Amino acid sequence: MTDFTATRAAFHLPEGMIYLDGNSLGPLPKSAAARVAQTVASEWGDHLITGWNACGWMDMPARLGDQIGRLIGAEAGHVVVGDTLSIKVFQALAAALKLNPHRRVILSDTGNFPSDLYMAEGLISLLGPDYELRLVAPEEVGAAITDEIAVTLITEVDYRTGRKHDMAALTAKAHANGVVTVWDLAHSAGAIPVDLAGAKADFAIGCTYKYLNGGPGAPAFIYVAPRHADMALPALSGWLGHDSPFAFDLGYKAGVGISRMRVGTPPVLQMAALDAALDVWDDVDLNDLRTRSIDLSERFIAGVEATCPDLTLASPRNAAERGSQVSFKFEEGYAAMQALIAHKVIGDFRAPDIMRFGFTPLYLILEDVDQAVERLARIMRDRLWDTPEFKQRKAVT
Amino acid sequence: MTDFTATRAAFHLPEGMIYLDGNSLGPLPKSAAARVAQTVASEWGDHLITGWNACGWMDMPARLGDQIGRLIGAEAGHVVVGDTLSIKVFQALAAALKLNPHRRVILSDTGNFPSDLYMAEGLISLLGPDYELRLVAPEEVGAAITDEIAVTLITEVDYRTGRKHDMAALTAKAHANGVVTVWDLAHSAGAIPVDLAGAKADFAIGCTYKYLNGGPGAPAFIYVAPRHADMALPALSGWLGHDSPFAFDLGYKAGVGISRMRVGTPPVLQMAALDAALDVWDDVDLNDLRTRSIDLSERFIAGVEATCPDLTLASPRNAAERGSQVSFKFEEGYAAMQALIAHKVIGDFRAPDIMRFGFTPLYLILEDVDQAVERLARIMRDRLWDTPEFKQRKAVT
Repeated sequence: MTDFTATRAAFHLPEGMIYLDGNSLGPLPKSAAARVAQTVASEWGDHLITGWNACGWMDMPARLGDQIGRLIGAEAGHVVVGDTLSIKVFQALAAALKLNPHRRVILSDTGNFPSDLYMAEGLISLLGPDYELRLVAPEEVGAAITDEIAVTLITEVDYRTGRKHDMAALTAKAHANGVVTVWDLAHSAGAIPVDLAGAKADFAIGCTYKYLNGGPGAPAFIYVAPRHADMALPALSGWLGHDSPFAFDLGYKAGVGISRMRVGTPPVLQMAALDAALDVWDDVDLNDLRTRSIDLSERFIAGVEATCPDLTLASPRNAAERGSQVSFKFEEGYAAMQALIAHKVIGDFRAPDIMRFGFTPLYLILEDVDQAVERLARIMRDRLWDTPEFKQRKAVT
Repeated sequence: MTDFTATRAAFHLPEGMIYLDGNSLGPLPKSAAARVAQTVASEWGDHLITGWNACGWMDMPARLGDQIGRLIGAEAGHVVVGDTLSIKVFQALAAALKLNPHRRVILSDTGNFPSDLYMAEGLISLLGPDYELRLVAPEEVGAAITDEIAVTLITEVDYRTGRKHDMAALTAKAHANGVVTVWDLAHSAGAIPVDLAGAKADFAIGCTYKYLNGGPGAPAFIYVAPRHADMALPALSGWLGHDSPFAFDLGYKAGVGISRMRVGTPPVLQMAALDAALDVWDDVDLNDLRTRSIDLSERFIAGVEATCPDLTLASPRNAAERGSQVSFKFEEGYAAMQALIAHKVIGDFRAPDIMRFGFTPLYLILEDVDQAVERLARIMRDRLWDTPEFKQRKAVT
């Protein structure tokens, strides 16, 4: 059994705050502060340029990739860390399209995170008007997978509602129709068990600052299935993805396997924080995590529905169809979330009317859920959100 | 007059080490350690997701961009920080090509850093075989700028030899021929005075971990001339470059001006280090910097030529034609550099035979140069490089 008391103790959780936004930015692992300080003072400070070899900086993207790989069911040696998720979406999508050269349609759904769609638009602006980004409602994705589709670009867990696609079933249908799959694991990695190899996924990408707790601006990751790894062309073909970066050849030659998905110089300080954050996962069983995630989420839903009649569940009621977040709709959701934050329960808001709550078993306990429900119930009952201050919108991530 | 005693004191320089590799990775600014620690412990630790607004993280790419902008002669509000240099090369090149839609040739030179060429190759792999990356010798770039060329992709200062292109003259010739310019300032920003606005440059990109001392994996920057800023399409069209990122629209609409060149979530810890590093530049006059850079470089050349007959100057002899580095050719340059590093003079090696030395006036003094020459002279005279250990190559950046 996973020791969640130990994992909770590994995080710095501000006194009195109930943090239900680990699906946006995970909290600080206590060991990350020392790990980053060491990287700055000793590695950068004392080793300077020699740190790339002496301190293992150059190998970190692959080493951290493997640590993440274990959490998403990837074969060892097939995940690498770097860039941002948007950049990795672009790389995966460009590579996937090249593997299916006679088709022109990218299929996604309207529940996908917009940046994935924007990056697809940008890619199409380069590839030309023959290409099409086709959007359907999330429930219609399965039916829309036909032999006209080149690539599916699907986020497994919906960033607003928490609705979870069936990765294995959709991938099987895609393959039966000659379609290449790109799975975005932004709200999956570290949130639910993922089995990329078992589902025979082709490409996957994700970020590390949400459930993996890598810190603000932590790098993304990319997975390429072993069967594609030496054929997939990265499009963003930077020198660190070259077969021999330090030969400084004038022409590009893609590196072996996943290494070709590296682009430029990796962010060493961010990787140091991520390194510490991933250590917390060493003894975590993802099935235990899932059980606990469902316990926390179900308790929250029951509590809110019992005490907040103005809030409507926006997530699937069936736990098996959700990721590790729960969302409620409320017309004045922005103001209500501001009020809740002022009462030290941190969730977030997604336009137009979604109040979003992440349930992250590494550091949340049932008592946190009960307190969050209690504070939310009071805000709703007493209309504490109904002030000009809370209604005035500012950009939040 | 710039107080270079003060700027030298701002850096952590390991005891006994003479660091001539600030053109690869700048040393640690003393204030960066505290700044990063504060960002980790207080900003991330205590503010968590609210740090994006409360701690100004969301605005940092533009704020740091403006600090860099002052050093490269950019108009205020036209530089933004993010991603890696390779990614910014791709963005600038893709945007520049779209501004010149009837032409198909990208002109670069064989002295360009290979990653720039690789990214151009990758872009062409998406745009199609009508496009061409044309490489000429560095001395032939001027003559090769004709009305056939769509875009020039030129690194102002050659990463191996330090040879400096004439940005104003080449840009003028480009414009006379209807060519759009992309300038890579990797070895210019913080090394020499740059006047993007004066030269009428169209696009510029650069990195911040060399002369700007932002730390290992520090983010890149991109400049778009004001006249193009609201027309240039970023191709890598991520959500933070959207006109209204938090509206979560399904369709992309490019943001105002330089903000559209933002892509994904920016690396907050790296930006914190860069923030501290850029503060060191507050009272630096770039003309003073240039004078001192030339003094240091000339003294090194004179010293090496007087004492190391086996080394041949690979940089231009005329200081006006160099950036802030000096390179020497030596067939066993790799081994000689390893021996020199073992004697605590840190330079680097670039294949096939270049020994490269950066002269960074913020923290180097003439005595450093004299000591470096002395140690190098002894290594060459006594053939201290001629050991199996030093001849065995490992990858270094």
